[in-house]
Amino acid sequence: MIRFECDYSEGMHPRILERLIETNMEQTAGYGIDPHCDRAKELIKQACGREDVDVHFLVGGTQTNMTVIAAVLRPHQGVFCADSGHLNVHETGAIEATGHKVIVLPTTQDGKLTAEAIQNGYDAHWNDETHEHQVQPGMVYISQSTEDGTTYTKAELEAISATCRKCGLPLFIDGARMGYALAAEGCDYTLNDIANLADVFYIGGTKVGAMMGEAVVIVNPALKKDFRYLLKQRGGMLAKGRLLGIQFETLFEDGLYFEVSKHAVGLAMKIRRAFEAKGIKMLFDSKTNQQFPILPNEMMDKLAEKYAFSFWCKVGETHSAVRFCTSWATKEENVAELLSDIEKLYLKQK
Amino acid sequence: MIRFECDYSEGMHPRILERLIETNMEQTAGYGIDPHCDRAKELIKQACGREDVDVHFLVGGTQTNMTVIAAVLRPHQGVFCADSGHLNVHETGAIEATGHKVIVLPTTQDGKLTAEAIQNGYDAHWNDETHEHQVQPGMVYISQSTEDGTTYTKAELEAISATCRKCGLPLFIDGARMGYALAAEGCDYTLNDIANLADVFYIGGTKVGAMMGEAVVIVNPALKKDFRYLLKQRGGMLAKGRLLGIQFETLFEDGLYFEVSKHAVGLAMKIRRAFEAKGIKMLFDSKTNQQFPILPNEMMDKLAEKYAFSFWCKVGETHSAVRFCTSWATKEENVAELLSDIEKLYLKQK
Amino acid sequence: MIRFECDYSEGMHPRILERLIETNMEQTAGYGIDPHCDRAKELIKQACGREDVDVHFLVGGTQTNMTVIAAVLRPHQGVFCADSGHLNVHETGAIEATGHKVIVLPTTQDGKLTAEAIQNGYDAHWNDETHEHQVQPGMVYISQSTEDGTTYTKAELEAISATCRKCGLPLFIDGARMGYALAAEGCDYTLNDIANLADVFYIGGTKVGAMMGEAVVIVNPALKKDFRYLLKQRGGMLAKGRLLGIQFETLFEDGLYFEVSKHAVGLAMKIRRAFEAKGIKMLFDSKTNQQFPILPNEMMDKLAEKYAFSFWCKVGETHSAVRFCTSWATKEENVAELLSDIEKLYLKQK
Amino acid sequence: MIRFECDYSEGMHPRILERLIETNMEQTAGYGIDPHCDRAKELIKQACGREDVDVHFLVGGTQTNMTVIAAVLRPHQGVFCADSGHLNVHETGAIEATGHKVIVLPTTQDGKLTAEAIQNGYDAHWNDETHEHQVQPGMVYISQSTEDGTTYTKAELEAISATCRKCGLPLFIDGARMGYALAAEGCDYTLNDIANLADVFYIGGTKVGAMMGEAVVIVNPALKKDFRYLLKQRGGMLAKGRLLGIQFETLFEDGLYFEVSKHAVGLAMKIRRAFEAKGIKMLFDSKTNQQFPILPNEMMDKLAEKYAFSFWCKVGETHSAVRFCTSWATKEENVAELLSDIEKLYLKQK
Repeated sequence: MIRFECDYSEGMHPRILERLIETNMEQTAGYGIDPHCDRAKELIKQACGREDVDVHFLVGGTQTNMTVIAAVLRPHQGVFCADSGHLNVHETGAIEATGHKVIVLPTTQDGKLTAEAIQNGYDAHWNDETHEHQVQPGMVYISQSTEDGTTYTKAELEAISATCRKCGLPLFIDGARMGYALAAEGCDYTLNDIANLADVFYIGGTKVGAMMGEAVVIVNPALKKDFRYLLKQRGGMLAKGRLLGIQFETLFEDGLYFEVSKHAVGLAMKIRRAFEAKGIKMLFDSKTNQQFPILPNEMMDKLAEKYAFSFWCKVGETHSAVRFCTSWATKEENVAELLSDIEKLYLKQK
Repeated sequence: MIRFECDYSEGMHPRILERLIETNMEQTAGYGIDPHCDRAKELIKQACGREDVDVHFLVGGTQTNMTVIAAVLRPHQGVFCADSGHLNVHETGAIEATGHKVIVLPTTQDGKLTAEAIQNGYDAHWNDETHEHQVQPGMVYISQSTEDGTTYTKAELEAISATCRKCGLPLFIDGARMGYALAAEGCDYTLNDIANLADVFYIGGTKVGAMMGEAVVIVNPALKKDFRYLLKQRGGMLAKGRLLGIQFETLFEDGLYFEVSKHAVGLAMKIRRAFEAKGIKMLFDSKTNQQFPILPNEMMDKLAEKYAFSFWCKVGETHSAVRFCTSWATKEENVAELLSDIEKLYLKQK
Repeated sequence: MIRFECDYSEGMHPRILERLIETNMEQTAGYGIDPHCDRAKELIKQACGREDVDVHFLVGGTQTNMTVIAAVLRPHQGVFCADSGHLNVHETGAIEATGHKVIVLPTTQDGKLTAEAIQNGYDAHWNDETHEHQVQPGMVYISQSTEDGTTYTKAELEAISATCRKCGLPLFIDGARMGYALAAEGCDYTLNDIANLADVFYIGGTKVGAMMGEAVVIVNPALKKDFRYLLKQRGGMLAKGRLLGIQFETLFEDGLYFEVSKHAVGLAMKIRRAFEAKGIKMLFDSKTNQQFPILPNEMMDKLAEKYAFSFWCKVGETHSAVRFCTSWATKEENVAELLSDIEKLYLKQK
Repeated sequence: MIRFECDYSEGMHPRILERLIETNMEQTAGYGIDPHCDRAKELIKQACGREDVDVHFLVGGTQTNMTVIAAVLRPHQGVFCADSGHLNVHETGAIEATGHKVIVLPTTQDGKLTAEAIQNGYDAHWNDETHEHQVQPGMVYISQSTEDGTTYTKAELEAISATCRKCGLPLFIDGARMGYALAAEGCDYTLNDIANLADVFYIGGTKVGAMMGEAVVIVNPALKKDFRYLLKQRGGMLAKGRLLGIQFETLFEDGLYFEVSKHAVGLAMKIRRAFEAKGIKMLFDSKTNQQFPILPNEMMDKLAEKYAFSFWCKVGETHSAVRFCTSWATKEENVAELLSDIEKLYLKQK
């Protein structure tokens, strides 16, 4: 079985493993106060082109989302989110468990929020006479790339950021797959743009080569205070914190993060094009490492004999959308094999 | 600088590292549903002599405590705890953040709860006419070994367990340092006893050779339901869950967990005896990997030039209690050097 | 200005006021443990035709909803709710503040859930392979009458109840306006039916003649335990609890609750018919004390000069839906005046 | 049975009842936006000698404490409190249910915090290297008068306030029995002093003549924002809010609040002196409406045949401390009867 199921099937990038081996017997202080974390923070600041940000390392995405959101909001506030937003649908109510409503806004077909939807949601609240009886919008959450593999353009991010600032809503960008977004064809922004447009965001490690770990970057000074307390309170402060530092050091000291992302996206686009060459449509216009072809059911079943991928949803009676994912670990030869099988299946079908 | 500061200064036991290397390119499903987790669960059940328990892997201790406690209690209930209990003093209110009061009971001088204190606390609640205006005791939390390095004897555990069962209070044992407790001189119980006496407990990895990870063992069937939802909700479900499985596999497949603990405790007792031979008293009667000598302040300062250890508290004007910790990574030669320095300092002092 | 704005504009029904006067200097124990509360509970049990239920008195609706829901759910569970459900839109996130997600289900045009929608929502959760990553449905919330003034028929309630029982989801009926539902034309069920179909519900006082107060009726024995602790914890246990008891005694000792409701509904239907006679359509098919005519904007503006009512929503460019509310305090002569003004405006318009 | 059990046994002061009768058929907007609330706020501002404060009305004490505290603290912060503080022992964990730890400080024998204890608690936190692993002190809660009937002097309040300001800890004064504190013999401060020294406090109605209701006064501008959202979210916004306004109007329009308090305290002091004249000691040096004589057990039993009072605690084998409470409703003749019975019992005993 060749797996295109998700981007966290394997362990970690070999260079990270090497660094774990090299550093294993070092003695360092715990809880993220160590030279590796310090250096990793420095490297991330450089990658963001901003020396004035705070960087913190957490273990996983749900943990990161709930910690950041609970840190930012007051009790009566909620977070604007797309209907397909991870924290709305795939975190078992982690946000609500911290006391806050996830306020779903109208979402584009490819899983994105718009500046307009945010402005409308904000206005709807404040123009309603009974607004004190409603959850107050307190921040905005978007993912880059989204759950659907799609990405916001620089212009879209600028518009969203401008709206957020106008409305006084901190903008939080979930970058669990930030690397893949930056590696997407036609990407017209950099990490520095992200840092300039967001109030807080995170750079995901788990899905981009690390064994685990997410790097939160707090840009807005108002959100920096006491964040380490919140880290600890929500269970996100790793005792052997240097494990996170070492991974992000490796990912950012000479561009491995970007290299790995490019590798995955390149292979994903090959898969996409192979399907499209056969007239197969995509559910979402993704230019990142997740691709969502709408397959005839027999083709899906046939491919499933040899390849692992995720069922996404039915499309009519005869077709299904599925997800193929690539990662740092995806092998050229496995993709080649898939491409050849697509070709064969297509010929047969004819 | 030779570090006796804590038991999580280094990376991970070399055998765990080896297994990470071997398994790195395996493709497995995420979130703890993989062959390594399955095997690790099996091995832990065997070590506990109980096939009927549920085993779950989490990343860290605070996360484990808050997840287990929030899973067990109803909203109006609290958890009985020693005043020095980790969740009372060192988790930034993680338990309260899930909505529950930590109810401190009278604690023995060496940091333990007694069956009597639990019974009294329980009776005090239910005998009070206004009990509905008070937090209802809903479970009992103890640590084995405790924050003070001390341990409960089998008889003490049996008494506590019997009281808990009589009162209908689930007993939760925090085993962040369970290995060291089991390796203590004079330990008269086994993991099987723990499993038979507790309703839920965890076997700590982070402080006993793993890079991270705690294995929760749920014995009481009433507490098993839906635990994975709670894991996910509290941010404790690791995407690459097999990393936890691999570590516990290694620790439990041929007794490494116990071996590593014995190593650490043996060295800690050498340190204790060296101090005691010089007439230095211990703050707590610890037989585990943490030792708390009460040093003359000059001796403390002198040792601090070469060794890292933790300041614990002042004892009068002239003395201070400090903590020396050993672990799987502590080297015989470093302990020998410390012993020789204690000898020298003592001679000088004379 | 004649007010049809809401059903809580005045103080309390004169007979309740009389009872307050009579009992004012009585000395009773606090917190709901007094003869008036006892008698009121007995009367409510009789009205429900069920001796085996528990009755508790709370002060307000939001408080009641959050207390009941937090009492019923485990941390990872959420509550199914209509999109217009009060707790989804008008309680400032009170439910989320207790840690639980409000899970919105597809709702009928007149603001109701269906048995089918509940079954589908339940199945969607359990059929999804990743259900542990989602909030688990833990109970169902409906209002009778709804926010839109509409009511569930007996058959609809039976279907919902049967589905809930099949799925193991406790059914909670918000009866802030239960009286008006029971007084609606064509109502084909009784309080006894409600008690037999719901697991827990409440009979609202605030909007039906009391100065404040909601009577929670817990039918399902599994939900009864320790409810008074939860009352106290959520701030819902009134010190002078007998004030609530006295009100419900008065409302239920000789049918005042039903009489008052009938009065209000009768006048509301007169208003509805007067509008309909002029060809004015209703936004919702309400047979209770809230009526939602869709008025031409000039007519709305004209009526607003003399009458207070609530703007509901725009209907196209030229029309608006508004809400007229009646209550125990609505005077026949005020309704007559409104009817005459509708007549006049209509003639003018022609 | 003559009741001295608590200060909330009867309904409401007759003048409040009169106002309820007069205003019953008035039509007002709900939720605290009405002329009665407006006027009551104005009167309270005048009584506090501060036009720049915000005033809000809630229904009960637990609700008020949890709403104010949750409004002030960030998630990782807790509230300093005396060990006997109401929110520590008698609110079923309402504060913890909002996510915050109640941090108990060393308390004087008569139930008070000191400026020194606050400073020490604050320093202990910030001087600890691991402070990020502990709940951060975020505010201070005291009661005036305390649960033990004792009061803080002006000098004590000034010292506490100065310490709080130095440490950046908002000071919250629970004034459930503020009236009795102000009426105490030797009281050397006014409501204006309270307003100048506290950041937020409340003036209790429930225990001082109202049927229910607490008036929160927010002095510190930083704490004012969005308080009505929090009111609503925690279930504390009364639909017929004017009921609270009417009561506080009556209590503050011509000094009834102070008059009623004086009445109760005067009678309580008579009771105290009658006991003391017979050589009976008091458990606490209370000069307010609660008195705690330490009675020989037979005397307690004898008095209990005719009078209702509260058992407080055992004092040795032969004596018990009990609580006698007076209120606006306590009758001179009942106190006279008690005094005469004390006299008789004393003679008999001799």
